Amino acid sequence: MTSHAPLPEPADLTIEEKASLTSGATFWTTKAIDRPGAAVPSIAMNDGPHGLRKQVESADHLGMGGSLPATCFPPAVGLGSSWDVELAERVGVALGAEASIQDVAILLGPGINIKRSPLCGRNFEYLSEDPLVSGVLGAALVRGIQSQGVGASLKHFAANNQETDRMRASSDVDEQTLREIYLRGFQRVVQDAQPWTVMCAYNRINGVYASEDPWLLTTVLRDEWGFEGLVVSDWGAVNDRAAGLAAGMDLEMPSSGGTTDAQIVAAVRDGRLDESVLDTAAGRAVDLVRKARAGAGRVAGPLDVDAHHALAREAATRSIVLLKNEGGLLPLAPSARVAVIGAFAAKPRYQGAGSSMINPTRLDTALDEITDVVTAAGGAVTFAPGFALTASDPADAASLRAEAVRAAEAADVAVVFLGLPAAAESEGYDRTHIDLPADQLALLAVVREANPNVVVVLSNGSVVALPFADEVPAILEAWLLGQGGGGATADVLFGAVDPSGRLTETIPLRLEDTPAFLHYGTEGTVHYSEGLFVGYRWYDARAMEVAYPFGHGLSYTTFAYSAPSASVREDGDITLRVAVTNTGTRAGREVVQVYVSRPGLPARPVRELAGFASVALEAGETRDVEVTVRRDDLATYDVRAGRWLVAGGDHVFAVAASSRDIRSELSLEIPGDAVTRPLSRESSLAEALAHPVAGPVLARAFAPMTEASGASAIMPEGVDMMAMLGSFPLGRLGMMAGLGFGPDEVDRLLETANASEQPAG
Amino acid sequence: MTSHAPLPEPADLTIEEKASLTSGATFWTTKAIDRPGAAVPSIAMNDGPHGLRKQVESADHLGMGGSLPATCFPPAVGLGSSWDVELAERVGVALGAEASIQDVAILLGPGINIKRSPLCGRNFEYLSEDPLVSGVLGAALVRGIQSQGVGASLKHFAANNQETDRMRASSDVDEQTLREIYLRGFQRVVQDAQPWTVMCAYNRINGVYASEDPWLLTTVLRDEWGFEGLVVSDWGAVNDRAAGLAAGMDLEMPSSGGTTDAQIVAAVRDGRLDESVLDTAAGRAVDLVRKARAGAGRVAGPLDVDAHHALAREAATRSIVLLKNEGGLLPLAPSARVAVIGAFAAKPRYQGAGSSMINPTRLDTALDEITDVVTAAGGAVTFAPGFALTASDPADAASLRAEAVRAAEAADVAVVFLGLPAAAESEGYDRTHIDLPADQLALLAVVREANPNVVVVLSNGSVVALPFADEVPAILEAWLLGQGGGGATADVLFGAVDPSGRLTETIPLRLEDTPAFLHYGTEGTVHYSEGLFVGYRWYDARAMEVAYPFGHGLSYTTFAYSAPSASVREDGDITLRVAVTNTGTRAGREVVQVYVSRPGLPARPVRELAGFASVALEAGETRDVEVTVRRDDLATYDVRAGRWLVAGGDHVFAVAASSRDIRSELSLEIPGDAVTRPLSRESSLAEALAHPVAGPVLARAFAPMTEASGASAIMPEGVDMMAMLGSFPLGRLGMMAGLGFGPDEVDRLLETANASEQPAG
Repeated sequence: MTSHAPLPEPADLTIEEKASLTSGATFWTTKAIDRPGAAVPSIAMNDGPHGLRKQVESADHLGMGGSLPATCFPPAVGLGSSWDVELAERVGVALGAEASIQDVAILLGPGINIKRSPLCGRNFEYLSEDPLVSGVLGAALVRGIQSQGVGASLKHFAANNQETDRMRASSDVDEQTLREIYLRGFQRVVQDAQPWTVMCAYNRINGVYASEDPWLLTTVLRDEWGFEGLVVSDWGAVNDRAAGLAAGMDLEMPSSGGTTDAQIVAAVRDGRLDESVLDTAAGRAVDLVRKARAGAGRVAGPLDVDAHHALAREAATRSIVLLKNEGGLLPLAPSARVAVIGAFAAKPRYQGAGSSMINPTRLDTALDEITDVVTAAGGAVTFAPGFALTASDPADAASLRAEAVRAAEAADVAVVFLGLPAAAESEGYDRTHIDLPADQLALLAVVREANPNVVVVLSNGSVVALPFADEVPAILEAWLLGQGGGGATADVLFGAVDPSGRLTETIPLRLEDTPAFLHYGTEGTVHYSEGLFVGYRWYDARAMEVAYPFGHGLSYTTFAYSAPSASVREDGDITLRVAVTNTGTRAGREVVQVYVSRPGLPARPVRELAGFASVALEAGETRDVEVTVRRDDLATYDVRAGRWLVAGGDHVFAVAASSRDIRSELSLEIPGDAVTRPLSRESSLAEALAHPVAGPVLARAFAPMTEASGASAIMPEGVDMMAMLGSFPLGRLGMMAGLGFGPDEVDRLLETANASEQPAG
Repeated sequence: MTSHAPLPEPADLTIEEKASLTSGATFWTTKAIDRPGAAVPSIAMNDGPHGLRKQVESADHLGMGGSLPATCFPPAVGLGSSWDVELAERVGVALGAEASIQDVAILLGPGINIKRSPLCGRNFEYLSEDPLVSGVLGAALVRGIQSQGVGASLKHFAANNQETDRMRASSDVDEQTLREIYLRGFQRVVQDAQPWTVMCAYNRINGVYASEDPWLLTTVLRDEWGFEGLVVSDWGAVNDRAAGLAAGMDLEMPSSGGTTDAQIVAAVRDGRLDESVLDTAAGRAVDLVRKARAGAGRVAGPLDVDAHHALAREAATRSIVLLKNEGGLLPLAPSARVAVIGAFAAKPRYQGAGSSMINPTRLDTALDEITDVVTAAGGAVTFAPGFALTASDPADAASLRAEAVRAAEAADVAVVFLGLPAAAESEGYDRTHIDLPADQLALLAVVREANPNVVVVLSNGSVVALPFADEVPAILEAWLLGQGGGGATADVLFGAVDPSGRLTETIPLRLEDTPAFLHYGTEGTVHYSEGLFVGYRWYDARAMEVAYPFGHGLSYTTFAYSAPSASVREDGDITLRVAVTNTGTRAGREVVQVYVSRPGLPARPVRELAGFASVALEAGETRDVEVTVRRDDLATYDVRAGRWLVAGGDHVFAVAASSRDIRSELSLEIPGDAVTRPLSRESSLAEALAHPVAGPVLARAFAPMTEASGASAIMPEGVDMMAMLGSFPLGRLGMMAGLGFGPDEVDRLLETANASEQPAG
């Protein structure tokens, strides 16, 4: 990208040139135009969400070959667990810097799809089962990346929540759910951080390919949310190129070898596609190049490998969730005799497979890091792999277990590294169960018997069932932690860092309990049958037990909350204030969560996350924590009205340490958004009876019947006839001949009633 | 109906006359045409499913006033529990006879809607949560009714599963679920018993009013199922009359006062409605009158009140389900000291409210019947109401309970009648919880303490939570039993009749566990989110505990099953044979149930009822029981193919005493229905690789890449690249430039592959 001549406007370009700008030149680059006076340079776009995957020049044309070394930060499953906006932004800065150094204009991330099921093979790339967490952290990542003159690509837009049949399956989801759960995080990132690009997903939504859905890509994304950037296809997501362009899908990736450019040119020439549509897309492509050129070279190389590795390690410490710590087994004394058990301690699982797979600049192992700490303090470490990681591993299972038992017996504490094998989690396919391998569970059983002081450390990109949760004293959910995970694990195990991660996804007791269990992973059509009730919204609404709830995470210290106070700002946003005290003897970090229960709405989740903030506190320290809840986040999508509406009335705000650890509640009367719903022939009798004008008229008409003897011969004692008749639409009252409410009378009544009504706002 | 002149053909009638035949004259009658030479008599149609509700002449115009006495048979909730096809047919005969005697041409029933949620206010009018039970018993009722020269009206067609907003709400349900669960029972009744009329429901289905849905009323009902009768609207279900007529809704009820007839005439005159459509509907109306006239007077009055009461009592004994009988507390000794507790013993709840409410010819009470039995045997009965039935009841709760405790203390056994108050269950509204009233639960608690020998007898039209199930030795689920329920209850309590009812709906532990819990009872749109997983299909698929499973019901004796055998008949139907032995010391009746698990189908219920049969056995007796499973009932609806398909392969047939009491299993290889699915650009790479012709070609193309070093740099060890690429549609292979599979190459491949394929059938 050396040219600094002004970039052309679409009007300066031929149809062919414009079409050429709307698809890739290679697997990773856009097309250049070399014509003097109308030159447009090519720009590079590369994976991925938690590190840069820039393929080496000689790699294949599938985009699957080896890549240049880059820092592997914790995948989203880890970083999300930090609930740390500032940290996410710093990681974004680092990602942007690495891209800038490698002359990559667009980094393909973050991925913020909702974790609808723990089975999704790509969950490790996503932040949460909750759209607020996804949106807030996603926006922070985008801000960070783009601060380095590099564009982000917010993906995968939208409702891309399974890998099975991902390029054909239709995510069939009702509009309210789509808006409130699956689009809401995207909306927040777009409105808060304006990513340079949005990547449209492979799948269909309600039958329409995301890559050719004008409602999704134009009406919602641009008209409603104000997106100003370019929409790029996921790699291979284009089905019908001209339809996509018309819908607002600006750039096809990767190259189609010119085939689809020719389709676009033909469609414009024969009038099927308005040239202005092509102008718009080409203009956006040029705009993107303009931004890229302006940002290029912002960060000078070479990469400070040490600094980025340190950040990766810091982020990893924040990613670890302490699920359980009975009897204060953790943190461990560095001088202890420690049995490190489990192959993952020496061969870490630190990232998932697929397009996000990074060639790391370096790689810590937990075993080395633990050994360093313990050795320095005069303790002793023994290591036993305990199980084979791959089938090709020759060691015998029984002897591996026996070795582990001996190590555990001889130690003060056994730190057992369990997790999912790499093959279990990848882009491209989904899991079919959430169990850890049987040999690992068998290992744990014998180790527990040999030494009850067991700390389980989990390496997994999506939740696993924890059938042993009641039987071990301590569990660290260490997810996939990136290249600094080994050190981070040691930092947390020995208390150099207080564990402060919190679950952004519920850990269920069984797969059968999960919301999408019966409607997930099918080919063709996937019914989003649980509707709004994704993640904790499901378990709470159905009052189900879970292994560990959304928002859960322990610390080595304890925190007390004062009674909260609240104020409504002029813009309608709400500030909640609570004083949090570190009541323990160690420094720690608390994540204060605010959940809202909305008034009088049918079939709503019990409570939904509405805001959060974190606070670091020394032992004994108290600080006021402010949590902002945006008024917009109180709104729900009203399909009938076709808009977001805040329901008026008492909203209960729960200040909480997890979705099931509510510390106190506070009720605020929130003024509702006004909406006018005139009476119509479809209005029910009950609705009309509640109307100030129509009500009395109808009541008079019904009076003789309700009072007549025998009129309620078919209703139980004490039940008004209106219990049965109230659902009658006004337009059908004619069937009750005695009432005198034929079509004409109903029309007159409606006219009078609606004329009288004062629009509420 | 005195005219015996030939009825006119539509061609003999004016447009106005034809239109007049397509809507009611009054609330309960069709219009007559009096013109000489073209005379058509009026016929009467009256409620309802378990008895005749013929209003007295002076009643109001709402159809809600008092009615003539008629036998109140057990509502469907009871009769369904009998699983007794022969009994259902005899009840149908009796219903038809009473209609015939009263000169009623059409009896408005049976209702066979699926019990989607226990909350539905009208569940007491429906047979089951399972379409096979609903269809088989529904067909028996229709056969019985129509054998008396009276037409049945199969209702409410279709997907009418809640009362809330019933005249506007749309039941949004995917086609496979609609076909397999909500329509399947209707299909069976239509195909097995050809009801004279089908009543279309109030609600919408996927946005379209059932009363104006051509797919439902014509394509499915007539073209696919071969329905030959007339479609009548539910009372007030007509929204747009002309649209309804065009869709296949022939007769609007009740009268619209002529308004809609005029709309029809206008629509025909101005060409919006083809006159042939009106001819068809009018022709069906005349056909119905023809059938009615042929059947009229088949049964001579007066009604044999005693005989029908005896049948009502017999049916009621078969309706009672013995849920629990610890330590053989039941049957009771007639010579015992019996405390009869609970107001329902004296004031029975024997039917639900709404249009089905019968003015019974007589009414047994359990208290009287128990007293008769016990007194004759020298025992003693004391009665204490225990709780007030209505708020207007003046008695004090504490003193009612104290009286009941005294009665229980002085007795050998306490029979406690609990149940839902009448106001809890009615047409027109739904319940919001499934709890028994708190005062009844409190009563039971103190009675249990006074005397542990407690038999709970339940009176309820839909399931209630049974929090006391583990704490009382015996529970009779006595539903709503009609006018003979008092005697039936005594018959079962003292063992004059062996209880042989079986649950046709699961009794869940909690409302929160029920499949539709989060998507039920909403206004506007109701998402049938659980899909196929209704009732036991849900609890089994999610491996949930229930209070009592579908198909459960104890006897006073015990039954042993031999190993089953099976044979496939020439027509494809399957006969299962099992020898059942009464291994106890009393005569009894067993219901043998057969469930099928289908092979290799994704996201299917674990097992589904496929057939059942009952057998009466003396103590020690053994009989061979044959259960037929129709091949059609093994089919599932394939939306992609647009047809029912039997999947080939091993089907596992479970011979069972309940859905969770499988006695033995038997596997049969069933040949599948052939279906051809040619490859297309939408076919996935994995599908194409499995194809005999395309597969090798594609494998060769991919070989260099899968073998190239570094090609799997982003896949985990041991995982083939195809795991990620397999879901790529063939039409998108172009993006992998190295493959050489551009659009032309793909088209050529498809042509060759599809030409080679032999259509499988």
